[in-house]
Amino acid sequence: MVVGIDNAVTATKSAISSAKKTPPTLSSDSVINFARGDPTIYESYWRKLGDRCSMVISGNDLMSYFSDPGNLCWFLMPELDHAIRRLHGVVGNAIADDDRFIVVGTGSTQLFHALLYAFSSPNEPEPISVVAAAPFYSSYPEETEFLRSGLYKWAGDAYSFNKDGPYIEVVTLPNNPDGAIREAVVNRKGGKLIHDLAYYWPQYTSITARADYDVMLFTFSKATGHAGSRIGWAIVKDKEIATKMVKFIELNSIGVSKESQLRAAKILGVISNDCLNSGPIKEENFFEYGQRLMSERWEKLREVVKRNGVFSLPKYSPDYCNFSGEYTDYSPAFAWLKSKEGLNCDNLLREHKIVTRGGTNFGVGSKYTRISMLSSDDEFNLLLERLSTIKGTPNGNY
Amino acid sequence: MVVGIDNAVTATKSAISSAKKTPPTLSSDSVINFARGDPTIYESYWRKLGDRCSMVISGNDLMSYFSDPGNLCWFLMPELDHAIRRLHGVVGNAIADDDRFIVVGTGSTQLFHALLYAFSSPNEPEPISVVAAAPFYSSYPEETEFLRSGLYKWAGDAYSFNKDGPYIEVVTLPNNPDGAIREAVVNRKGGKLIHDLAYYWPQYTSITARADYDVMLFTFSKATGHAGSRIGWAIVKDKEIATKMVKFIELNSIGVSKESQLRAAKILGVISNDCLNSGPIKEENFFEYGQRLMSERWEKLREVVKRNGVFSLPKYSPDYCNFSGEYTDYSPAFAWLKSKEGLNCDNLLREHKIVTRGGTNFGVGSKYTRISMLSSDDEFNLLLERLSTIKGTPNGNY
Repeated sequence: MVVGIDNAVTATKSAISSAKKTPPTLSSDSVINFARGDPTIYESYWRKLGDRCSMVISGNDLMSYFSDPGNLCWFLMPELDHAIRRLHGVVGNAIADDDRFIVVGTGSTQLFHALLYAFSSPNEPEPISVVAAAPFYSSYPEETEFLRSGLYKWAGDAYSFNKDGPYIEVVTLPNNPDGAIREAVVNRKGGKLIHDLAYYWPQYTSITARADYDVMLFTFSKATGHAGSRIGWAIVKDKEIATKMVKFIELNSIGVSKESQLRAAKILGVISNDCLNSGPIKEENFFEYGQRLMSERWEKLREVVKRNGVFSLPKYSPDYCNFSGEYTDYSPAFAWLKSKEGLNCDNLLREHKIVTRGGTNFGVGSKYTRISMLSSDDEFNLLLERLSTIKGTPNGNY
Repeated sequence: MVVGIDNAVTATKSAISSAKKTPPTLSSDSVINFARGDPTIYESYWRKLGDRCSMVISGNDLMSYFSDPGNLCWFLMPELDHAIRRLHGVVGNAIADDDRFIVVGTGSTQLFHALLYAFSSPNEPEPISVVAAAPFYSSYPEETEFLRSGLYKWAGDAYSFNKDGPYIEVVTLPNNPDGAIREAVVNRKGGKLIHDLAYYWPQYTSITARADYDVMLFTFSKATGHAGSRIGWAIVKDKEIATKMVKFIELNSIGVSKESQLRAAKILGVISNDCLNSGPIKEENFFEYGQRLMSERWEKLREVVKRNGVFSLPKYSPDYCNFSGEYTDYSPAFAWLKSKEGLNCDNLLREHKIVTRGGTNFGVGSKYTRISMLSSDDEFNLLLERLSTIKGTPNGNY
């Protein structure tokens, strides 16, 4: 593989470089989209790292369906298994000891589906209810409902759920869209909990404890910004649940891309190495970089919002972060913007060519909207510029 | 990316080489597994090609969720779209002109699910029936049933299906498990057809026409042997169906691994180039290699089966292959072995440490079993050796 690698590089360069499309130039007329959390914010960090994260795959690599036939999750690459457990150890955000099962998925979305399947049973008289406390991640209802499964059904806001019997509650921590630190709210017998910890990383929130829930979901997309790889993972205590999840992924897609798994293993490994580097020249590691960047963006956004008097943002008080060893600001991946009473926040922003995802998608009112904080610098700056042109009238109405 | 690539190679070599596990040494005691069609047969071909199929991916490549925001299938990489259409043009096995939609999936399994969703409707009074002519691919029933969808349900053997109203018929061509050339069998009003053409490639069958069905499924796993990449594609005539498939994949996994897509594009491109190479030194292209290898294996298997007198295999007559320009043998990816009346073929082989998938999984009797023809050479030779020790008794009974 080493011999003649320059040929390989020449041969693949055109494919890769055409895949790295330059985004269209933004102008004052451009509609800018903050509805989806495409994490392009981190691209320049990874570019700066140069070939430290590059990987070479030969034509005869990674051909079999199987990654680790002896493992319960037979399609999980041992390299990724190792890199995941190590990174959680280094960051201290979740317990991923050897007695826990790791299940890899095509993004954490596939794992969410796998969990609905794992927590339900065809022998129950009726579908199990799936709930989350509003405001909840806008895709949960549709993901749960779209196949009209007889195994599970969406039952809405956890705060108003009062049905007897088994149920599944999804706890997103910190929450998407509003960044709140959540706990399960139903707390009744027969409840099964899915803890979606997609944003429980130091750039978004203080790491206050090693999470130790029955089922924890993470995703490469939000951890490092590699959304195109579609890699998510679950840390699962119960063997039977892990087994059913693996069965789901087998029936849904016969495993998960090995190329993506190996790349995720590589990148998570580099992050762990950098975090542990205690040499004399200590460079900023990925999470320190992310924390600084997100914190700067939040400061700028708060400044604009404060000035224009039309909107407000949630307030978070700093917490001690075990990872960074200091009190850190919360800098969620989304800004949960609230407009003054009587305004439709999403519509108002659209009039200013800013596309966001309105509150009704998250189970609450239209005075709220969600704005991704993970866009490119150019887009984020244009967002600030446009937001600052929206002014409240003297009597406080828009 | 070019500067310092040797470092990148060194850095990733260990990850990749540990991923290329040496299979455990086979001994006379080893149980050998032919139940799944793991296509390791082609590994040596791709190794021979060396770095012509190698690719390098940098840490900052392929980060966004989006591959081609303007395309109906927004997560399909343009490079893969192009490579797929070009290869079908070169091989002549399917019409993939620009007026057809390409939808990429995490293997063709995810696309099968996407099609069940696309062909059904929540407004129908009852779930749409899904049928296939027996013997059918053993996973169709479970894939259709396992989520207890209210949109579609498995209705068994197409030959005995006689219900009025809409239905979905899966036509696998050539068929898995028995290699038969199939046509739809129900042929009634309201029928929607899924043509699974996973094995419609020159190494398995004669290419007699450019397939032109409404929906055609293909998979990288069986086309080239890259099962670990989990890449499948559908060629779809109807825009509304393609749109619903894309919606399914969005809700199921928010797209498909970009690393795998780019690698598939690279490898399919190399195959097309080699097939078109008409220079003075014409090397054997991938399909010629596959055809020769599969044909040799079938000849050896038929020889052993003929000698032992316990089993029989389907007979196929050679057809003119438009791709190779000559009459070629059918060499299906699976051998559909039939034992003498009264024997359980799968059990009989298990007694000889050969694991296969028995006929009842495919909707027929236990005198049949399916054997993968895509194993490694070592495993295949051991299969021949063990089969040859199974002898009929003088009166023809085992």
